[in-house]
Amino acid sequence: MSKFWSPKLRELTPYVPGEQPRERLIKLNTNENPYPPAPGVETALRDFPVDHLRRYPDPESRALRDALAKEFGVEPEQVFVGNGSDEVLALAFQAFFCHDRPLEMPEITYSFYPVYCRLYDVTRRALPLDDQWRVDLDLFSQEAGGVVFANPNAPTGHGHDRQAIARLLSRITGSVVLIDEAYVDFGGESAIPLVADYPNLLVTGTFSKSRSLAGLRLGYAVGSRELIEGLERVKDSFNSYPIDSLASALGIAALADHDHFEACREAVITTRERTRGRLEELGLRVLPSQTNFLLVSHPDIDAAQLFVGLRERGILVRHFNTDTLRDFLRISIGTEDEMDSLIEALEPLCT
Amino acid sequence: MSKFWSPKLRELTPYVPGEQPRERLIKLNTNENPYPPAPGVETALRDFPVDHLRRYPDPESRALRDALAKEFGVEPEQVFVGNGSDEVLALAFQAFFCHDRPLEMPEITYSFYPVYCRLYDVTRRALPLDDQWRVDLDLFSQEAGGVVFANPNAPTGHGHDRQAIARLLSRITGSVVLIDEAYVDFGGESAIPLVADYPNLLVTGTFSKSRSLAGLRLGYAVGSRELIEGLERVKDSFNSYPIDSLASALGIAALADHDHFEACREAVITTRERTRGRLEELGLRVLPSQTNFLLVSHPDIDAAQLFVGLRERGILVRHFNTDTLRDFLRISIGTEDEMDSLIEALEPLCT
Repeated sequence: MSKFWSPKLRELTPYVPGEQPRERLIKLNTNENPYPPAPGVETALRDFPVDHLRRYPDPESRALRDALAKEFGVEPEQVFVGNGSDEVLALAFQAFFCHDRPLEMPEITYSFYPVYCRLYDVTRRALPLDDQWRVDLDLFSQEAGGVVFANPNAPTGHGHDRQAIARLLSRITGSVVLIDEAYVDFGGESAIPLVADYPNLLVTGTFSKSRSLAGLRLGYAVGSRELIEGLERVKDSFNSYPIDSLASALGIAALADHDHFEACREAVITTRERTRGRLEELGLRVLPSQTNFLLVSHPDIDAAQLFVGLRERGILVRHFNTDTLRDFLRISIGTEDEMDSLIEALEPLCT
Repeated sequence: MSKFWSPKLRELTPYVPGEQPRERLIKLNTNENPYPPAPGVETALRDFPVDHLRRYPDPESRALRDALAKEFGVEPEQVFVGNGSDEVLALAFQAFFCHDRPLEMPEITYSFYPVYCRLYDVTRRALPLDDQWRVDLDLFSQEAGGVVFANPNAPTGHGHDRQAIARLLSRITGSVVLIDEAYVDFGGESAIPLVADYPNLLVTGTFSKSRSLAGLRLGYAVGSRELIEGLERVKDSFNSYPIDSLASALGIAALADHDHFEACREAVITTRERTRGRLEELGLRVLPSQTNFLLVSHPDIDAAQLFVGLRERGILVRHFNTDTLRDFLRISIGTEDEMDSLIEALEPLCT
């Protein structure tokens, strides 16, 4: 603490991201994609005219927004882009959730949401998951100052289908419903087609998972023009040019390669289902997942102990030391070889 | 306006950056460097292992902070990095200026500061410049909730030397003094050596001007460990990874080439002084400048009219339509050839 810190700064409890270790480990802790970006990304990188870097980027990121709009079948004015979906989420909290009415979210969801609530003085109302560890959509109320959850949810892995989201939206009309689709491409169903009918629906997404570009920091939101205009207004009061010229060019190249995208996400899904079966054979409980990770627990063995055992064997997974999650490990889906190593390392730990 | 916008969002008046035109113009409107980035930047780009992009960057940006610390002779714990110095400034406002006491700044300075004040509900006290259009350091008060100005100042061009800044700091000890050195490399004197003695001094800088990397979005702050820790805390409550892996690698390459850096900034300074003389010969008033731009006015001809005349002749400069600045044009320093074209275009307009 310092006497120069604002009162607000003193109160903050920052988000803690998964470790980026310097040593060589099999890294299954931050839900990165085990496959490289589309080959066109490398071409775009090698061909990028370096002299362009002396110029500011387009503050409106029109080329990237056009490419995303085409991808999702919406207008460019319905697309917002940011420096990772975390930035997009933060700006959305500031734009739409700074109300007197509380923001409703599941008790277990992406742990950055409560951090944004503290940063922007948003009152939070946490709702329990159902008995299957799924987001209980019936609990969100029309009186909320807003609704936010990840779909599929993190770190639990379950996703609701579009019909269920439409039912929610026909009920909640007075505030913004923010659906974070970071993991949707691994078996979830996107709510983006619903933005045409629901002006209060905002869907966020990222290039970090299914596009293999976590290192590039690209995220986006799709919604009605009025919501996107609101996001632009906050962004233009914060940072005129959050998307650098290189990231924009490489993101556009990634979007252009549908075959690579399909092949990678199918490989992840196949490996996930295979891994799930093998983990269950080892006596672990594995929640069903529509994401690129599995949330697992062992009936008898402490999760923290498994975490340490895996780390000693060169495998890094994620353990959240919270009341609700301390019995679980979140394991990202790697390559087939990496998952073989995981199973091999777990075998002696689980017997 | 939308019923879904937060009350705060409705009140915002966003910053308006200089235009990034799509047509070919001689672009002297956003203070970009006319020379390309260091050759090592191109090498770093071509050699970058694309597969690394599937991984998240180091959330602490240690490699880039190490390089900056070495450049400035400070510890890495005294360096903060962000997605352009605009992001660094925004986070600093949130960290240090959210007080009841007003933030003091010159009436004429970087026009993003008042935007941050509105975004973060910071009360602002604007102080007049002296009769030479210089920041009047004597007007800042010990009672301020903070002090912020650009040095050299923008868009006026004058910079105070380190001794003057030290005198200010020996007087203002109760709040953070934020000095924005975006333009310092074109003839100003950096206050960074003073951070060792003044724990409330925060100096920001950018790769956008003297490093020719506006398109990459890299900015930084240097200060005491307690101020840098405060910035990290806000950043970690907003966006864990603001610096992408590529930007970090290219920024480090830019810092490594001192010869290129010196050659470019000397060329800009030489062209600026030559241009200044030629503009005066055309009857324009030109404020002395330690930056890569000149603020000019004509005793008889309307600045807006000159702006339009230049644009018709394919030259884009900046005109701020505010009470205090509407008589002026801000002209970025381009190459010698670009400045020849400027003078040629101005001649018929000024007679």
